[in-house]
Amino acid sequence: MTKYKEIKAEILAIGDELLYGQIADTNSHWISQELDKIGVRVIRRTTIGDNKTSMMAAFADAEKRADIVLMTGGLGPTNDDLTKPLLAEYFNCDIQLVPEALEAVRTFFEKRGRELTDLNRLQAHLPTKCTYVPNEVGTAPGMWFEENDTVWMSMPGVPHEMKKLMTDFVIPKIKETFPLPIIYHKVIKTVGIGESWLADLISDWENNLPENIKLAYLPSLGQVKLRLTAFGDDYDELQAAVETQIDKVKPKIDKYIFGYNKETLEEAIGRLLKQADKKVALAESCSGGFISHLITSIPGSSKYFQGALIPYHNEFKNKILHVDLETLKIFGAVSEQTVIQMSEQIRKKFDADFGIASSGIAGPDGGWAEKPVGTVWIACAMEGKTITKKLQLTQDRLLNIQLTAVAALNMLRLCIIGKTE
Amino acid sequence: MTKYKEIKAEILAIGDELLYGQIADTNSHWISQELDKIGVRVIRRTTIGDNKTSMMAAFADAEKRADIVLMTGGLGPTNDDLTKPLLAEYFNCDIQLVPEALEAVRTFFEKRGRELTDLNRLQAHLPTKCTYVPNEVGTAPGMWFEENDTVWMSMPGVPHEMKKLMTDFVIPKIKETFPLPIIYHKVIKTVGIGESWLADLISDWENNLPENIKLAYLPSLGQVKLRLTAFGDDYDELQAAVETQIDKVKPKIDKYIFGYNKETLEEAIGRLLKQADKKVALAESCSGGFISHLITSIPGSSKYFQGALIPYHNEFKNKILHVDLETLKIFGAVSEQTVIQMSEQIRKKFDADFGIASSGIAGPDGGWAEKPVGTVWIACAMEGKTITKKLQLTQDRLLNIQLTAVAALNMLRLCIIGKTE
Repeated sequence: MTKYKEIKAEILAIGDELLYGQIADTNSHWISQELDKIGVRVIRRTTIGDNKTSMMAAFADAEKRADIVLMTGGLGPTNDDLTKPLLAEYFNCDIQLVPEALEAVRTFFEKRGRELTDLNRLQAHLPTKCTYVPNEVGTAPGMWFEENDTVWMSMPGVPHEMKKLMTDFVIPKIKETFPLPIIYHKVIKTVGIGESWLADLISDWENNLPENIKLAYLPSLGQVKLRLTAFGDDYDELQAAVETQIDKVKPKIDKYIFGYNKETLEEAIGRLLKQADKKVALAESCSGGFISHLITSIPGSSKYFQGALIPYHNEFKNKILHVDLETLKIFGAVSEQTVIQMSEQIRKKFDADFGIASSGIAGPDGGWAEKPVGTVWIACAMEGKTITKKLQLTQDRLLNIQLTAVAALNMLRLCIIGKTE
Repeated sequence: MTKYKEIKAEILAIGDELLYGQIADTNSHWISQELDKIGVRVIRRTTIGDNKTSMMAAFADAEKRADIVLMTGGLGPTNDDLTKPLLAEYFNCDIQLVPEALEAVRTFFEKRGRELTDLNRLQAHLPTKCTYVPNEVGTAPGMWFEENDTVWMSMPGVPHEMKKLMTDFVIPKIKETFPLPIIYHKVIKTVGIGESWLADLISDWENNLPENIKLAYLPSLGQVKLRLTAFGDDYDELQAAVETQIDKVKPKIDKYIFGYNKETLEEAIGRLLKQADKKVALAESCSGGFISHLITSIPGSSKYFQGALIPYHNEFKNKILHVDLETLKIFGAVSEQTVIQMSEQIRKKFDADFGIASSGIAGPDGGWAEKPVGTVWIACAMEGKTITKKLQLTQDRLLNIQLTAVAALNMLRLCIIGKTE
């Protein structure tokens, strides 16, 4: 990267409602991620209120430090919204009607069967020094300035409007304006192994990575993402170099890898089930419907999700799911014997290839010495075989539900691909 | 509020991982909310990297503007973590071992059966000008400074450690240090009515609120919170004034109010079911387990949640839930007739007082002219009566699932309290 001048960016989030904690600023984090992907270095993020002194000072400070200033918010049509008049004042220019912008706002309202008000009409008036950037999903246009050796972009604070402007206009425009390094990213998504164990398994490989490929560990609930970032001049070469490295590391951690880049565990499960033409059904006790929710949150899941039963009490585990009363009495609901029966019965009931079951003590109450809060059994029944696993989780109910779901989905994944040993 | 000097605060979040978008800064938003509650005005939030120039400049800038500077991050024991040495340099003092802090770190490790390393030992060395603030849930102590007419607090970036320090020490200490107005907050939580309709219903009341009581609308998915904030000198008087206003507005919006302050809709449902000694069961089709998940995420829900069935296909709606094949054929799965049968059958199957059912087209595919994506039917069966509702939701699958859940929970709530007309 040494041959490139580092391009520095600052992000300004504008709005009293952010400072008072009424709305969380999710925009700045998202913009950081997008800039990082194209090799622009974010050096500062600032949140300020709808206030002239703060805003003018923030413009001047950012200009001193950054090549690019991206700002969100303060673009509404009311008097509280100061971004547009203050940018005009800061760059010493007038505000004028932009006919193209007026046309866009008019069309926006027409499509929704609403009348254009005078207030809306004002949104088509823009500082003369800016380039008008159409906002197809809202009424406040984007504004791009190239002033004082700095590039400025003002965007609405509504997240989906900002994201569309960033994706369609800002990112391509920044790439065109600045000599950025070529960057290639690939994320390996793993499940079922902790960060430090994973690091141990791949330390030799990690230590021998070429200098232009960086590795980051990004852990989340029960999962770890490995992000490989390669810098250079040629996209194809970088892609090839990263793929070579992935081929090298894959055999070491193969059973933990469920996908790449943006694919979620639920999506991977769906892809695998569709490929294998198999179907799943669930008997959820302690996870209370959460695993079913994850599976059915994926479009098209009706192709492989048969259904689920949540028998929250022993009575229904017996009456509806036909788990032996004897088994429930002797071993208890939270036992290997019970989840085996639950998974086998649900598989039969819903005519599925895989039957998944969970039973445990989610907490915060209900545990005892032998089975403390956080004790969970999961099982997967398939043709000719049923496998089980005991989890010892935490004191936190919601966390236990989430970790049970990740473990059960991973068990299902390993059963589908036949890697249960 | 005019008789109080406004106390201004700035929040600094420190860490390269924030600027690169690897971790979202949720701390600053949470701190904003806590300061807002006690009447401290947040005037700016800044995120900077682990970098001497940026940090020293941020300290100096914040000092010029604010009475209070709260910072998170940069407190780890490694070389990247600069907050402690830079604060010592900024305040021109040494760093020394604090025996009490060493004892705390030692105890922290002992409890977890781990050895104290030299690196951990360094965490007990602190700038001589700071007040040591014990961190009971982590290894990096908090540091409180009163320097240059400003109050400074440095906290770890790990959210639960920061929250504990804020709650146990920082908020009480700020209240003790500054002459803040007395503030009383109460939040009215509503469901089943949009923000603008709600505003119409209560506009007379809103316009006649006393000057020291402010109202904020905080909308979220299918719900609107009304936050009343009263400022003054006497807590009891403020509380009485707010309660008087709530008594006035309540009759206008009674059926939409499900709770106050932090109570969630799921918690309110649990409270109401326990009070009435009633039980619920669910037949979820398009909501795919999400309503059951919300209900079972509440500790103690096994007292009133009997269980659920998710029959994702007509075959199982008939075979397992005993919905007439005829009904499914003539009216379809997404119909009033089908959800009526689903709710009544699930109520019977699980021996519940209330049977809730959902069936709809979550999308993004599967709709047609007569029943477009976003068409959802919900029902609640109870002793002697079954009520239904048709929803026309969005094109977004996850949003449709969430909105169905809110509508179904609200329907259940109205049935429990007998306000179904």
